Amino acid sequence: MTDPLRLGIAGLGTVGAGVVKIIQRRAELLARRGGRPVVITAVSARSRDRDRGVKLDAYDWEDDPVALARRPDVDVLVELIGGSDGPAKAATEAAIAAGKDVVTANKAMLAHHGQALAEAAESAGVVLRFEAAVAGGIPVVKALSEGLAGNEVRRVLGVMNGTCNYILTRMEHGGLSYDAVFEEARRLGYLEADPTLDVGGIDAGHKLALLASIAYGTQVAFDAVQIEGIERISIRDIEAARDMGFRIKLLGVAQMTAAGLEQRMSPCLVPATSPLGQLEAATNMVVLEGDAVGQIVLQGAGAGEGPTASAVLSDILDIARGTRLSTFGQPATTLVPPRPAPATAPAPYYLRMELLDRPGSLARVAAVLGEAGISIDRMRQYRHSEPVAPVLIVTHPTPRSALDRALAAMPETGVVEGQPVAIRIEDV
Amino acid sequence: MTDPLRLGIAGLGTVGAGVVKIIQRRAELLARRGGRPVVITAVSARSRDRDRGVKLDAYDWEDDPVALARRPDVDVLVELIGGSDGPAKAATEAAIAAGKDVVTANKAMLAHHGQALAEAAESAGVVLRFEAAVAGGIPVVKALSEGLAGNEVRRVLGVMNGTCNYILTRMEHGGLSYDAVFEEARRLGYLEADPTLDVGGIDAGHKLALLASIAYGTQVAFDAVQIEGIERISIRDIEAARDMGFRIKLLGVAQMTAAGLEQRMSPCLVPATSPLGQLEAATNMVVLEGDAVGQIVLQGAGAGEGPTASAVLSDILDIARGTRLSTFGQPATTLVPPRPAPATAPAPYYLRMELLDRPGSLARVAAVLGEAGISIDRMRQYRHSEPVAPVLIVTHPTPRSALDRALAAMPETGVVEGQPVAIRIEDV
Repeated sequence: MTDPLRLGIAGLGTVGAGVVKIIQRRAELLARRGGRPVVITAVSARSRDRDRGVKLDAYDWEDDPVALARRPDVDVLVELIGGSDGPAKAATEAAIAAGKDVVTANKAMLAHHGQALAEAAESAGVVLRFEAAVAGGIPVVKALSEGLAGNEVRRVLGVMNGTCNYILTRMEHGGLSYDAVFEEARRLGYLEADPTLDVGGIDAGHKLALLASIAYGTQVAFDAVQIEGIERISIRDIEAARDMGFRIKLLGVAQMTAAGLEQRMSPCLVPATSPLGQLEAATNMVVLEGDAVGQIVLQGAGAGEGPTASAVLSDILDIARGTRLSTFGQPATTLVPPRPAPATAPAPYYLRMELLDRPGSLARVAAVLGEAGISIDRMRQYRHSEPVAPVLIVTHPTPRSALDRALAAMPETGVVEGQPVAIRIEDV
Repeated sequence: MTDPLRLGIAGLGTVGAGVVKIIQRRAELLARRGGRPVVITAVSARSRDRDRGVKLDAYDWEDDPVALARRPDVDVLVELIGGSDGPAKAATEAAIAAGKDVVTANKAMLAHHGQALAEAAESAGVVLRFEAAVAGGIPVVKALSEGLAGNEVRRVLGVMNGTCNYILTRMEHGGLSYDAVFEEARRLGYLEADPTLDVGGIDAGHKLALLASIAYGTQVAFDAVQIEGIERISIRDIEAARDMGFRIKLLGVAQMTAAGLEQRMSPCLVPATSPLGQLEAATNMVVLEGDAVGQIVLQGAGAGEGPTASAVLSDILDIARGTRLSTFGQPATTLVPPRPAPATAPAPYYLRMELLDRPGSLARVAAVLGEAGISIDRMRQYRHSEPVAPVLIVTHPTPRSALDRALAAMPETGVVEGQPVAIRIEDV
């Protein structure tokens, strides 16, 4: 048997403890599949005493993750600290500088510093891998960068934040308000310490930016992701969308257009019968579209101890097997800065507005839409008790600019109560 | 730029032509992702003159695939001839003996000779890869052998033959008989030259045996796969199953039990609301269950020029990138012969029988089931015009042996017309 692969694990939270457990429980399996034993030499975390449900006394302890990264008896730094900067970045840079491979689950760090870190790893001749950073246990980084390597990618889209999907589906099934379910999710510990990372779409935006880089050979451009969270999604819209045959998802979409790279993470309507439309609870789903392969759908747990640890082990075993891959699927020096493009292509939209219940109201709204060049695919007005009538409209594909013109003109009609709601309908 | 990776392509059918097209159209993309140019040196096929919609005059022609495999200017043999033996096997063996890597889409060859070929490749220090052999464009070999390498696999199941799924779903949506749709599929060219490979479950059985080897570290044991085709599935059962909340799929299942390795490819009922139950047309779906990752669902096109060529390119680019993996996820010499086990674990079953319409009929059937220790979960008798009444029964989990006893005893009741139909219900 060849030399063991020696790991230094920095960060012993849920995922870190999960990785340690697998390495302890499945040593024989990992050695058989990796072609060599996978062992832990040293670990590092903030508090040494905390009980993590796993025995650590066989490993050296380092208070400083940077010192861990530099240990001569560590071949691979497994960075599970988290955070875009600070100790995670310091340890990663130290490991690279010391000529060690790095496996990380840190989407924030790579979304902000991916290009610099990938270039540093490359010139140091080490690999930097991040399967666990996107969609937890779903091997989507591998599927996209290796499985679909022969394809010109047409589109990458998906639900990449389980917490948001839990909130949206729980609102629907429970007929509950966003605030009620948000509180429930907080109690259940589903939310990040800073919940806006989840519900604000930032965490999912990080993941999308990483996949876009692999898909299009572009440098990670997280700042160019157009991000909108789910905070303003109401149960009324969820129920109205359902009634029209759609479901609302926090959907990430990356595609290369003539105008440049389009990256958006925002609530969208998708057909209720589509795979994405059927996604329940905290599950993640990523759809990869390639010119040769067509559409591939990948579904699984996007977070949690086991799934995320499974992804970390995938990268570790690749290294054990001698697989040496570029961080983003091609040499970092060949990645080009993307030209960020807004979502200009016409799309159908869902509109919900409250109309004053008086003759001619609908005619005025229809006129405003018509003047903006927006044609109506379907429209519903519901029976109502209040003096205002809820009206739902599904438009034919419309440029966003035309929609914005129409929305701006709505108040002038004098028949629309409050702000109309407009949500893009994604063709999936 | 480093030396180009030189391919010799044997077999220029749909897939072979598709691979040539991608290499011609995407040369820059492949070189960027592979880290080196991917070029074709020579090709081989039965007829030189046939128009394949792709220019071949830039490549040397070999009438004999074995000669192609031995060419000193070929680094990788891309075997797309097909067939478990004959020229495909001869060319593969010649390439391995000549120290060349092999990429193949040949499930039949690997199902029958996978262990010997993998051992030969290993001792020759070359790689033998087969992503395209299982589920077309879905990168399932990679997902299982690399993405889930840190998992103890609990179960591998899926729909792995698009033609069978097309036939079953077309029967359902068209209310058509098996024979009618079979003829339609033949006209559309969906069927293999020998259709029993498809509808008999053999092609899908080949694929299951390959995945089982990766999942459990066992030698490929195709002969141990319990195979039953879809030929006897009637539109009545499809409609009755749907009425009970199920759909009928040709389902492959591999799992390691205390008794040994269970491998079966047979029609099963699955919940209509499950991902497998919602699978339409010729799409494939593979579900991978691991102790850490939980359940991963992969869906995509299981056949066709583009999807299959995409999978072939995935293996080719792995080789271009210097990735050297064992054929079945671990050294072939460490794969153990599996102990084949029948599906002994109790499972629920769907039963359909025709009862003579006279008092006490149902009581007698229920008595026979009860004597065999089979308890009924749900039962339906339909309004009927004929003198016999169609009765559907869904049992609680039942050992197959008990079910067989009950079925054998049914004629004695004197009230059951013809043979009852019994189909396993798979928990997915």
